[in-house]
Amino acid sequence: MSIDLLQSKIRKLKCPIVVGLDPSRELIPPELLASWEEKLGPGPEALAESFSEFCKGLLEALKKLVPAVKFQAACFEALGWQGVKVMQELMAYAKKLGYYVLLETMRSDVGHIAALSAQSIFGGLDFGGERVFPYPCDGLVLSGYLGSDGIKPYLPWLRGDKPKNLFVVVKSSNKSSMEVQDLLSGDRVIYTAMADLTLRWSTELFGKCGYGQVGAVVGLSSPAAVQALRKRYDSLFFLVPGYGAQGGVAKHAAYAFDRLGHGAAVCASRSIIGAWRENPDAGDWPEAAVAAVEKMKKQLEGYVTVL
Amino acid sequence: MSIDLLQSKIRKLKCPIVVGLDPSRELIPPELLASWEEKLGPGPEALAESFSEFCKGLLEALKKLVPAVKFQAACFEALGWQGVKVMQELMAYAKKLGYYVLLETMRSDVGHIAALSAQSIFGGLDFGGERVFPYPCDGLVLSGYLGSDGIKPYLPWLRGDKPKNLFVVVKSSNKSSMEVQDLLSGDRVIYTAMADLTLRWSTELFGKCGYGQVGAVVGLSSPAAVQALRKRYDSLFFLVPGYGAQGGVAKHAAYAFDRLGHGAAVCASRSIIGAWRENPDAGDWPEAAVAAVEKMKKQLEGYVTVL
Repeated sequence: MSIDLLQSKIRKLKCPIVVGLDPSRELIPPELLASWEEKLGPGPEALAESFSEFCKGLLEALKKLVPAVKFQAACFEALGWQGVKVMQELMAYAKKLGYYVLLETMRSDVGHIAALSAQSIFGGLDFGGERVFPYPCDGLVLSGYLGSDGIKPYLPWLRGDKPKNLFVVVKSSNKSSMEVQDLLSGDRVIYTAMADLTLRWSTELFGKCGYGQVGAVVGLSSPAAVQALRKRYDSLFFLVPGYGAQGGVAKHAAYAFDRLGHGAAVCASRSIIGAWRENPDAGDWPEAAVAAVEKMKKQLEGYVTVL
Repeated sequence: MSIDLLQSKIRKLKCPIVVGLDPSRELIPPELLASWEEKLGPGPEALAESFSEFCKGLLEALKKLVPAVKFQAACFEALGWQGVKVMQELMAYAKKLGYYVLLETMRSDVGHIAALSAQSIFGGLDFGGERVFPYPCDGLVLSGYLGSDGIKPYLPWLRGDKPKNLFVVVKSSNKSSMEVQDLLSGDRVIYTAMADLTLRWSTELFGKCGYGQVGAVVGLSSPAAVQALRKRYDSLFFLVPGYGAQGGVAKHAAYAFDRLGHGAAVCASRSIIGAWRENPDAGDWPEAAVAAVEKMKKQLEGYVTVL
């Protein structure tokens, strides 16, 4: 099962870190962008090519250190189709290098639209007998606000030979997440209701590692929420954003793990891929990212031991 | 103000209909797709070109009948970058023909990612002094599950010379929307809490027509909810999906309007753009769509008069 794939990659590298590939113009070293603009002229194409070179450098540098990467679709879509094209190529590149690859779209669609997306992202498209996978990945991060109709079309691909994973946003990593997610309904807050649904969507879809094929995004904006959710849902795998640039710390991230150091992965993006900006002595951007991952790994090891 | 633009276009055509451009392979006439596959070979490019010709035919045929169109990003993204490229071109084409153009991404992103999307979609990208608008549109449909952090980055573009609109999903049009949206919290259900937030985001952003620049998506899955929401929020413009193929009827859609027939627009997609499948006698697909819009308009006129 695919959640086993993620868990086994984490155990092999003893590193429960997902690096978020969220490129934006200010995260690209200026010389890198300038060289592409010289070649192609300023425009979406040059910026997209600089995203590509930037992310390829990161993927190569981190491949023996980090088990998984997460592509933030919005960052690439912001450039138009040139960005999407580069993201598709990078996803294939990351798969080839052996990463567990996540796509974060954060969408919430009604049933027939969700079915189209599920077919494309997980099932692939059939063209005259040839199957094309526009977005090669192992898992998808989306929103569950529309309920089961938006999730069920993905579930058939969570079974079978090469099963995929879903991660549903239960509690997001931003401060204002509480405006909706923390509203109390009966004896549950809304994010707990979302976790209950997530658990239900995982029914009969559990890996050998004991965790479900449908995981939950549980951000570090509220450490108490992470603790409470871990206690209540011992079979939901947690994807934990909000580390580093968004203010989360290792002590709180540790709440997401079980006693074996399993069942969770911590996401960091800007603090890793933008590390070259903080520390000009760290050399080029891939080396700075490696140093930042090693630092984050050490921080986590103060609180979590992956067995 | 932009919500005035939408309202005035609706009043001019006496037609409160938004046609959803949600193309998929089975909605494309087979001869049309076959001719592109003959030219380009089967693949994402031929399918994308067939989407383009299909949607251009619809946009031309409906331009004097329908005030607004809505592009469903997922349908185009499903093909990969070739689909996104075509969507971008079609958005520019629709703007040129005079439509009020909506982009539906249904995303919910944390602040710094939302800011990137807002800059790209509303503000445009600056390349060496030249401003590029990858997604030319008047309004954007998204999810509010992450709270204010995901919405506020868009608000600066809702003011000024050429103000844009947001439409936040309050109550979606699918059956299982109740799983989260209908949970009771204090004296409100969650979709009412979302409507309260939407109203707050509209503060100081009201058009001359009396409606706010941030509107609400209110689906027809629960007619009682439409009625209750209209009564409670007399200054929220409602975008009403779920008509036709999803089961909504004119009598219930009418609940979304005020006494002047203002403050709402009803979305229909498959029942219009896929009308050629139901009625082979209606001629080609643009003619069938025109007939379907005229029929829907007449149905609505039984319950709503736009003054």
